[in-house]
Amino acid sequence: MAKTSKKMPRRNRSSPQGSLVGLGWELLVFGSFALNLVAIALFALPSLDRSGTPLGLDSEGSVAEAALVASPHSEGQKEEMVSEEEEISVSSTSGSLPASKDAVINLDHGDPTMYESFWKGMGNRGDITIAGWQAISYFSDVTNLCWFLEPEFDHEIRRLHRLVGNAIADNHFVIVGTGSTQLFQAALYALSPPDTPEPLSVVSAVPYYSSYPAVTDYLRSGLYRWAGDASACKGNAYIELVCSPNNPDGSIREAVLNSENGMTIYDLAYYWPQYTPITRAEDYDIMLFTVSKTTGHAGSRVGWALVRNKDVAKRMIKFIELNSIGVSKDSQLRAAKIFKAISDGYELPNPENKYKLFNFGRQHMSMRWKKLREAVKVSGIFSLPEFQPSHCKFARERTETYPAFAWLKCEKEGVEDCESFLRSHKILSRNGKHFGADRKYVRISMLDRDHTFDLFVERLSSLT
Amino acid sequence: MAKTSKKMPRRNRSSPQGSLVGLGWELLVFGSFALNLVAIALFALPSLDRSGTPLGLDSEGSVAEAALVASPHSEGQKEEMVSEEEEISVSSTSGSLPASKDAVINLDHGDPTMYESFWKGMGNRGDITIAGWQAISYFSDVTNLCWFLEPEFDHEIRRLHRLVGNAIADNHFVIVGTGSTQLFQAALYALSPPDTPEPLSVVSAVPYYSSYPAVTDYLRSGLYRWAGDASACKGNAYIELVCSPNNPDGSIREAVLNSENGMTIYDLAYYWPQYTPITRAEDYDIMLFTVSKTTGHAGSRVGWALVRNKDVAKRMIKFIELNSIGVSKDSQLRAAKIFKAISDGYELPNPENKYKLFNFGRQHMSMRWKKLREAVKVSGIFSLPEFQPSHCKFARERTETYPAFAWLKCEKEGVEDCESFLRSHKILSRNGKHFGADRKYVRISMLDRDHTFDLFVERLSSLT
Repeated sequence: MAKTSKKMPRRNRSSPQGSLVGLGWELLVFGSFALNLVAIALFALPSLDRSGTPLGLDSEGSVAEAALVASPHSEGQKEEMVSEEEEISVSSTSGSLPASKDAVINLDHGDPTMYESFWKGMGNRGDITIAGWQAISYFSDVTNLCWFLEPEFDHEIRRLHRLVGNAIADNHFVIVGTGSTQLFQAALYALSPPDTPEPLSVVSAVPYYSSYPAVTDYLRSGLYRWAGDASACKGNAYIELVCSPNNPDGSIREAVLNSENGMTIYDLAYYWPQYTPITRAEDYDIMLFTVSKTTGHAGSRVGWALVRNKDVAKRMIKFIELNSIGVSKDSQLRAAKIFKAISDGYELPNPENKYKLFNFGRQHMSMRWKKLREAVKVSGIFSLPEFQPSHCKFARERTETYPAFAWLKCEKEGVEDCESFLRSHKILSRNGKHFGADRKYVRISMLDRDHTFDLFVERLSSLT
Repeated sequence: MAKTSKKMPRRNRSSPQGSLVGLGWELLVFGSFALNLVAIALFALPSLDRSGTPLGLDSEGSVAEAALVASPHSEGQKEEMVSEEEEISVSSTSGSLPASKDAVINLDHGDPTMYESFWKGMGNRGDITIAGWQAISYFSDVTNLCWFLEPEFDHEIRRLHRLVGNAIADNHFVIVGTGSTQLFQAALYALSPPDTPEPLSVVSAVPYYSSYPAVTDYLRSGLYRWAGDASACKGNAYIELVCSPNNPDGSIREAVLNSENGMTIYDLAYYWPQYTPITRAEDYDIMLFTVSKTTGHAGSRVGWALVRNKDVAKRMIKFIELNSIGVSKDSQLRAAKIFKAISDGYELPNPENKYKLFNFGRQHMSMRWKKLREAVKVSGIFSLPEFQPSHCKFARERTETYPAFAWLKCEKEGVEDCESFLRSHKILSRNGKHFGADRKYVRISMLDRDHTFDLFVERLSSLT
């Protein structure tokens, strides 16, 4: 458990309460507007005045790049960009290596590029060749309720859960989605009565994943509406989102609401042995997983849901039919090959003990958290959540918690906004306010490439 | 132009009018309920009484299969299924070859499996190998406004449009989507003011693509709402969908509404030389295309939009970020390879004149329409749209129109519902009612495998 998650500051009550009385959309627009100001400050101003912000001093041209996007007139030309995206505020440094020791370090997104080196070490074990004539039809298996689920992927998902022991798949329907983001929306659709007079309240305990509010409200659905902090939830018609281990703070969570009308969606994207001890096989009614946080393949946009109830499963499948008529077969076939390589690494003879993804992940996360805690200690102006070790049934030993994100708090006198403070030192992180928390907190990705992470801890340790 | 499209019977005015006064959702539920009755008649009853319906007589066990889906308890077990899906009512015969001369022939969906034989003939030209470490990051090109668009795919899309001359891409942004279905929703989102007090009316001239109503209304969005037939549209705040060539009837269309507040989305999925003469390079503000109808790769779920206005493009990109955080890189890389193989077939030395997709498609469609018109003539109880030939700038000759769907009308005395009549002869088609048209019409896919199509025309010619 994350100690700090217990004494987490609550977001201004007016926000969730406000959305409960129908202000959800206005608040979203306001939040988006607030983020735009940050984006404009970050990108637009420097292009007018290169010395206007610390980024303006960047000698690697990242500001020049930040202010550029491809023009439609040709593939080469560039023009100004200001991203409006709430979840992913894309900049020229997103997903790229810092060009020098004092370049911008972008750890705003959970881009899991740390896993590239593992897959390079796997030789051709994760490679896949798809022939031009393959996977042409819309249909994967019409004898399966989820007719767009590739049977090989279904098989490898169930095999991986049996290997790891993190969830019980064999009494659940497997539903594939275009990332768990699509499955999250499919679950909201499935749990909302089609004829509900009032949108159902969608809640999650603070700090909650920063995408939940925007993804719930962007279409102003009459079926459901973001209502903020679960602990402030009134009434008993709601959908509670439980992310465990939690994004952003890594804490293990249970539902905080328990009325008989309440419905819960468990987002278990990070319930894998490289991030947290596997203490039991979860058996909830709706469990969401994503390939991106399991193996690193975020670009494939594949997730899966384990769903116990058949009618809920049918409604989720209907959502995906209406939203995208199924899910990329190419990515499902690739994910099946990737999962097979992982399970084979543990179940087939593996003398040198190589090819074990979760061992690779745990070793890297352990080293990174060690370095991060040392840097925080040296700096003296930050704090991090503390976790208790537990027995991991997969590792068959007592293991530590190494979350995919660092939920960093700035304790420095006079610093009210940690994200701005770090940005002034060319470290891009996600402001605590987007998680319904205090601005003294930021979320920092722990899954970037070694070079980027090492630069980050080095710079962090120098801050005083 | 399709002659019959001019004298197309209008759907009951009460439907679009009704939805204009807020009954859209109720109508959708009713329509879904109506389809369920068909589904139940088709699947559930035979499982109770094998002789209760003509399908009950099927000796190939397709009924037995039709009533089965995988149970979650194991990958093998089966149980009953009744699909609720409006666009794709999945059955055991979906996407599969009829097992015998008198088996069920399923041409309800536009599953483009006709193209499999072309790609088998291409040898390894359309094959792709993706290494385990590739395409891991969320980001494809952060210098592009559409940061999740793979540069190779962008390049091959623009190259293909230049080769075919069907649309002007080079003064438009290219936005990739999870099929054109996701892009259609992204365009509705982009064109609707976030603060609109009333949902914008979404309309399309009858007969319109059967998915438009359900995909517009399933989330009961406060931004937009299905309002039915464009010709019955009141007021001038609306979004008009123009599908050209039109699904289901193959007619070439223009917008029927032209108020200054009106906004139009052009669905050009079928504007390719195998289906219709390419008479000009279209240059509309928003044009939607899909890989599935261009090359046959429906299972890849990839489409693209050409968008002139930067703010509209940004809103569409934001929708795709919120809806699925981008689009499968694996499928984009594969589609780029597939498009490259097509353009190379025309632009590189090709002595035997093989490897030309549009030639293959046109030859097949020409032969199929010849066979279909002969069967209709022999039967004497059906009619089809007639089309005038035009000069195709791509083929550099006068060519015919060969739509991807046959919009078949049953003229037989006493037959009020063509879909039921065909189903009694074990031919599954889509009822005209789903297109806002008369039940005497059905839509039949012309893109299935040769074997299935030949069985279909043989059976059709035997009906009197």
